[in-house]
Parts: sequence; structure tokens; C-alpha cells
Amino acid sequence: MKRSENTSRGDSRQLIVASTREELRKNGILGLRVADVAEGAHCSITQIYRFFGDRDGLLAQVLGDMYDEIVSGAFDAYMEKIRQMETLTVDDLVKSLPLPSQPQSMQNQELRMQILATSVNNEQLRQRIEAITKTVYSNWQQAVEEVEQKLPKGVRVDWRVVNIMLVVQNMYYRTLLGDEGFTDEEYRQFLKDKFTLS
Amino acid sequence: MKRSENTSRGDSRQLIVASTREELRKNGILGLRVADVAEGAHCSITQIYRFFGDRDGLLAQVLGDMYDEIVSGAFDAYMEKIRQMETLTVDDLVKSLPLPSQPQSMQNQELRMQILATSVNNEQLRQRIEAITKTVYSNWQQAVEEVEQKLPKGVRVDWRVVNIMLVVQNMYYRTLLGDEGFTDEEYRQFLKDKFTLS
Repeated sequence: MKRSENTSRGDSRQLIVASTREELRKNGILGLRVADVAEGAHCSITQIYRFFGDRDGLLAQVLGDMYDEIVSGAFDAYMEKIRQMETLTVDDLVKSLPLPSQPQSMQNQELRMQILATSVNNEQLRQRIEAITKTVYSNWQQAVEEVEQKLPKGVRVDWRVVNIMLVVQNMYYRTLLGDEGFTDEEYRQFLKDKFTLS
Repeated sequence: MKRSENTSRGDSRQLIVASTREELRKNGILGLRVADVAEGAHCSITQIYRFFGDRDGLLAQVLGDMYDEIVSGAFDAYMEKIRQMETLTVDDLVKSLPLPSQPQSMQNQELRMQILATSVNNEQLRQRIEAITKTVYSNWQQAVEEVEQKLPKGVRVDWRVVNIMLVVQNMYYRTLLGDEGFTDEEYRQFLKDKFTLS
């Protein structure tokens, strides 16, 4: 294949992905029609199927990318804060975590849940999300080592709070509770207490 | 309205709900077609709309009921175990909780997540689920008082583990980790440690 053909193949793929994102933004996962994606990408439905197999394959690629951006983005944002500090306390560790009530993290939670729900019946997406989850989990475990070196000597932290508790946490439930749920301050205090090993 | 008409109105509603559940079981939330529900309930689409307004209204009713059954069922199952014991230890509290690896609770988690994801764009369902969440949350808080009376004098339990940690927990994330995630035993030990106030 000549270079120009390669490039144009890559360009079409890019256009399809961009058009899928735009359609998802407008109509959601349920409302996504491959015909609309084709129109937005100025290509044929056949071309989309050639790249992605079927509608599920297209969703697996694009929703998988979006899922990766959310969870890797959260990791990167956290580590950026941590790396700016030369020394750390348990308080710093907790304060750098996103708060339950932040609206932006709420939007991400909703999107994340819709992607997870889609993955229940989309095997390709499920495999992609499993792989992303394992990678991010291992990143968090490496981060623990990095963080540990910045803590004062003698401070003992229970990392199971990261490896068990935070890993399975879904703040959508907190939002459903409205005014009856715990406050940001209660959440931070709880984490601080549970992180600290006496 | 005569009694027979009332009864038959109730019967039709029941048949529509039963048919919706059957269709959901066969084709999932995305695949649910009101025409199929009508066929299964031997009624017209117009009749369904008269009872439930639209497809979203039908889903709000039936998925809301299913959601209620899952979360209330989990609460009832837990309390049944607890009520069989005259005295309790922290170990009993933890052992009575469902384990992350139980396949049945996994199926419920998948269904629960699909219902939550649907509620993001279905306002009626969202309101129903908010109400269910608040009711179950307040049931758990009352249960805490009941449990407290059965614990030995002097044992101090940190109920924030129930009111913060368990409330926002989603074990689907644990399943995605496969062999790399924490084990049932690690999970139980973690809960035991975090429940206990020294």
C-alpha cells in the first residue's frame, strides 16, 4: 500500500471516530445510528463495518477510548497534585482526591456507568474495559510506592483503602441520596481515619 | 366504575407488567419494544400508553420495581441472618454480608447497573430510584440501632463503614479485575478491621 493510501485510511478512521463521538454527545448510546455516523464522517456504512465489524465493534472502540480517558484522566490529575508536593501527609493524600459533590466528576460518573452498563452485553467492550481496569489498578499500586517515599518516617498508611475501598466506589449512589447522604467533610474525615494505621 | 371493570383494569395492568418483565429477560432494556409487550399481554399499544404514558413510563415502573426488589431483597436477606442470632460479634456482622465473588450477587450487580444507567436519561425512573435509595438508606440506619443492642457491651463499631463505604460500593469493578482483584478473605478482613473502633 502506498503512503497516501495509508494516510487516507487513517484519516477515514479518525473521521468515523470523531463522528461517533459527536453522535453520542447528541443522542446518547441508545440513540446511536450507524447511518448518522456515516453521514457525519462523509463515508459509507460499509466503510464503517470494514473498520469496526459492526455497531458493537464501533461502540467498543469509541466507548472504550472514552472510558480510558475518564479513569486515566482521574489518575493523572491525582498524581499531578501529588508530584507537586515534596513531602506528604495523610491529609494531603485525602485532600487531593475528588470530592463526592463535584459536578464534573458526577458527569463522568454518569457516563462511566452508562459505558459499564453497555459492556454487560458487548463482549468486545467488556474485554477492553477489563484491560483498562487492570492497567489503572496497577498504576495505582505503583503510585502507592511513589507516595510512600514522600510520607514522614513512622507514618503508617493502610493501602487497602486504595486497593479495596476506592477501587469499588461509585459516587452515583451518593448523588441519589441527595441531602440525606454524607457530606464532603464527613467523607474526607472517614478516609483520613481509615487510612491511618495506629 | 363497577367492581368487574376495576378488577379487569388491574388484571390488564398486571399482564402488561408481566409481559414487560418477560421481554426484558429475553431482549434486555435496549431491545424492549412496546409492540412486543402488547403482543405478550394480549392488549393494544394504546392501552399500554393509557396506563404508563410512554415507553419511558413503562420502564420507570417495571425497572423501578426490579431495582426495589434487588436492594430491598439484599436488606431483608441480611436482616434475616442477623435476627436469627441472639447476640452478635463484629465477625458475625461481616460474615453476613454478601461476598464479592458470589455469582448471584454479580448478576444483580449487572442488572442494577443497567437500571441505574437507564435512569440517567429517564427522569421518572431516576426519581423512583432516588426514593428507593433513600428508603433503603434509612432502613439500614434503623438496622444499625437494632444490631447495636445485640453487640457485647464495650464493643465499639464504626457505623460510617455502613453509611459511607458500603452505600457507594459497586462490586462490578471487582469483577472486572478478575484474578488481580482482592479476595473474599481480604475483603472480609478489611471490613472487620475498619468496623472496629479502638
